[in-house]
Amino acid sequence: MYHSDHALRIAKLQAHMREMGAEALVIASNVNLYYLFGQIYSGIAYIPQEGVPTYLVRRPQVYEGIEHVRYVRKIEELQTYIKTSEVSSVALELDELSYSDIQRQQALFPSAKLINGSNILRRARMIKTALEIEMIRRVTDRHMHVYAQVPKLYRSGMTDIELQIEIEHEMRQNGSVGVFRTFGSAMEIYMGSLLAGDNALTASPYDFAMGGAGCDALPLGSNGTRLQTGMSVMVDMAGNYSPYLTDVTRTFSVGKLTDEAYRLHELSRTMHREVIETARLGIPCSEIYAKCMAMAQEHGAVDYFMGYGQRAQFVGHGLGLQINELPVLTARSSDILQEGMIIAFEPKFVIPHVGAVGVENTYLITSYGVENLTPLQEAIINLED
Amino acid sequence: MYHSDHALRIAKLQAHMREMGAEALVIASNVNLYYLFGQIYSGIAYIPQEGVPTYLVRRPQVYEGIEHVRYVRKIEELQTYIKTSEVSSVALELDELSYSDIQRQQALFPSAKLINGSNILRRARMIKTALEIEMIRRVTDRHMHVYAQVPKLYRSGMTDIELQIEIEHEMRQNGSVGVFRTFGSAMEIYMGSLLAGDNALTASPYDFAMGGAGCDALPLGSNGTRLQTGMSVMVDMAGNYSPYLTDVTRTFSVGKLTDEAYRLHELSRTMHREVIETARLGIPCSEIYAKCMAMAQEHGAVDYFMGYGQRAQFVGHGLGLQINELPVLTARSSDILQEGMIIAFEPKFVIPHVGAVGVENTYLITSYGVENLTPLQEAIINLED
Repeated sequence: MYHSDHALRIAKLQAHMREMGAEALVIASNVNLYYLFGQIYSGIAYIPQEGVPTYLVRRPQVYEGIEHVRYVRKIEELQTYIKTSEVSSVALELDELSYSDIQRQQALFPSAKLINGSNILRRARMIKTALEIEMIRRVTDRHMHVYAQVPKLYRSGMTDIELQIEIEHEMRQNGSVGVFRTFGSAMEIYMGSLLAGDNALTASPYDFAMGGAGCDALPLGSNGTRLQTGMSVMVDMAGNYSPYLTDVTRTFSVGKLTDEAYRLHELSRTMHREVIETARLGIPCSEIYAKCMAMAQEHGAVDYFMGYGQRAQFVGHGLGLQINELPVLTARSSDILQEGMIIAFEPKFVIPHVGAVGVENTYLITSYGVENLTPLQEAIINLED
Repeated sequence: MYHSDHALRIAKLQAHMREMGAEALVIASNVNLYYLFGQIYSGIAYIPQEGVPTYLVRRPQVYEGIEHVRYVRKIEELQTYIKTSEVSSVALELDELSYSDIQRQQALFPSAKLINGSNILRRARMIKTALEIEMIRRVTDRHMHVYAQVPKLYRSGMTDIELQIEIEHEMRQNGSVGVFRTFGSAMEIYMGSLLAGDNALTASPYDFAMGGAGCDALPLGSNGTRLQTGMSVMVDMAGNYSPYLTDVTRTFSVGKLTDEAYRLHELSRTMHREVIETARLGIPCSEIYAKCMAMAQEHGAVDYFMGYGQRAQFVGHGLGLQINELPVLTARSSDILQEGMIIAFEPKFVIPHVGAVGVENTYLITSYGVENLTPLQEAIINLED
């Protein structure tokens, strides 16, 4: 990581720490250590409200010459470097780390009030630095390139899983790193989601926008559906071409779909043009959600919007190192659009006997407007053409 | 899940609960809900020390007609069905769930002593039921079949990542479910590990047997090394062909390796024959580790055993729904071999200028001896032949 960006992230965390009254912040999760340090290591980082962090590294012992790195066998050695017993309030990653891990960390700070450090990290990470935005920009091309190959990967008579496997292969050959990080231990996914036909109607246990029966091991996404005429094929595969993610959905079809399907797909595109792309700094995220719901209502499409039966309660979400970051575009969000947010906007419809339709793009919120980072053809592409 | 196996798992958990003095056990992690219920859902399961569990399901609402399933909007509705305020001791998944999740659950049991339910689950899952063993047996063939294809997937001049991508593709075409579960939030991996040449010497932050530089997003495994004459290629890709995992490592070579490499590969095979395959019920896991260390010592190979520089502290591990279950074959394990354990045994050596060599198989511990579930040719296969 560039030194200046590193310093900026620390300063940002420290500003949030002051706001939340945290004298110290301890980071131990892989994703947050990467955010802070630019590398994943086994150990912890100690960040004081003022001054420089101390990095306690158990493994690997390769960061020689990096300032403030201390090699340790166990995290209790923090007490050798920091007067932890004098810390009056400490923020720990209460949403990321296990109860057992937090108990062990908390024991190092016997006089400290406990603060939820996950909130500090999530709020800091919600606003991307210039370097983070650059890292995301660098990989949007790959995501779009892979989607452009989907018609070539398709063969008549394939199942949804067979097509997905070919897309995964194409992804990896184009630099997908494989790992695809989510926030929350209950949020599991493999390399994304591909939904064909009525499998899109199946509800899943996970809190993603769409469901799908999946398989016994992972009840989500493709389930072996044979691709047949009249089915939509929604491709929402991972944009994991670097530690930073992108999120794009495009809809394909096997032959022609119903008029209703094209109408609702266009409604999704209209939402992109009229809701997110015309949004401005300071607009509440809840307003974006409300506008989409109103448009779905106006077009008689509420029953199909964001699922059929079981429905997702959001129309978009922040992303970065994880696919589900802040802000979340829900009815009850208290966040407003801010410069440096990266948001995936995904108004989608699920139609019985057809499947899922709609478009998802990744947007950057800037002071001069909302920029679409993933400008790729949005019309439904007929795989049989 | 067959009804009888389901009842058996509950009875086993309840026996552990009695032993640990837990009046109730609450399960919420995906992997443990799958173990208990045979499906992943969003919600919790409440298991009393005697009697039948109550399944509180938030999502998906599809388990109609299943006894003791209650649909809820939030887990606090448990109090509608159970007098939680009267529970005097409750076991929660302290190692799996976040501090925030545990706090929320604990609030439901104001009078209860808190017990680490993760230990109950891990100890119950350590001994597989007949159905679990059958589910593992069913997928070992696929894992072995894919490894047998590796020479066909290899092309001269490939990088390690290119070969790995072709193996992943073959895995998926043979039914790999993609998701590959580990225990512990710090344990990340994608579809397994492929290590070529000196990349095997690079230490990683993760607590797997081997390292590898990997990439920025995931510092583990293949790193773009061009496969060249004299390099070993260790293939330890995921055996994720069902919710239940298998674990197999085979070593390949690009051309001929050094005599030392073949000698140490044979030493690994000898450890398989003389240590794990001759082990019997009741033998301490620590003894297996000690025997391996003694053999490595005797053959002047300690410096290369289980890593070079940074070394793994185990020679094998249990596996099932996750790749790193109990028991762990370490110097300080207090576990003994018991019937129904499934263990991956992986004595490996890392040799500078060559790479990693050795063999890993998945074994079933039975009352009549140790059964190799993955009997596939073990000699180093020259990819250039």
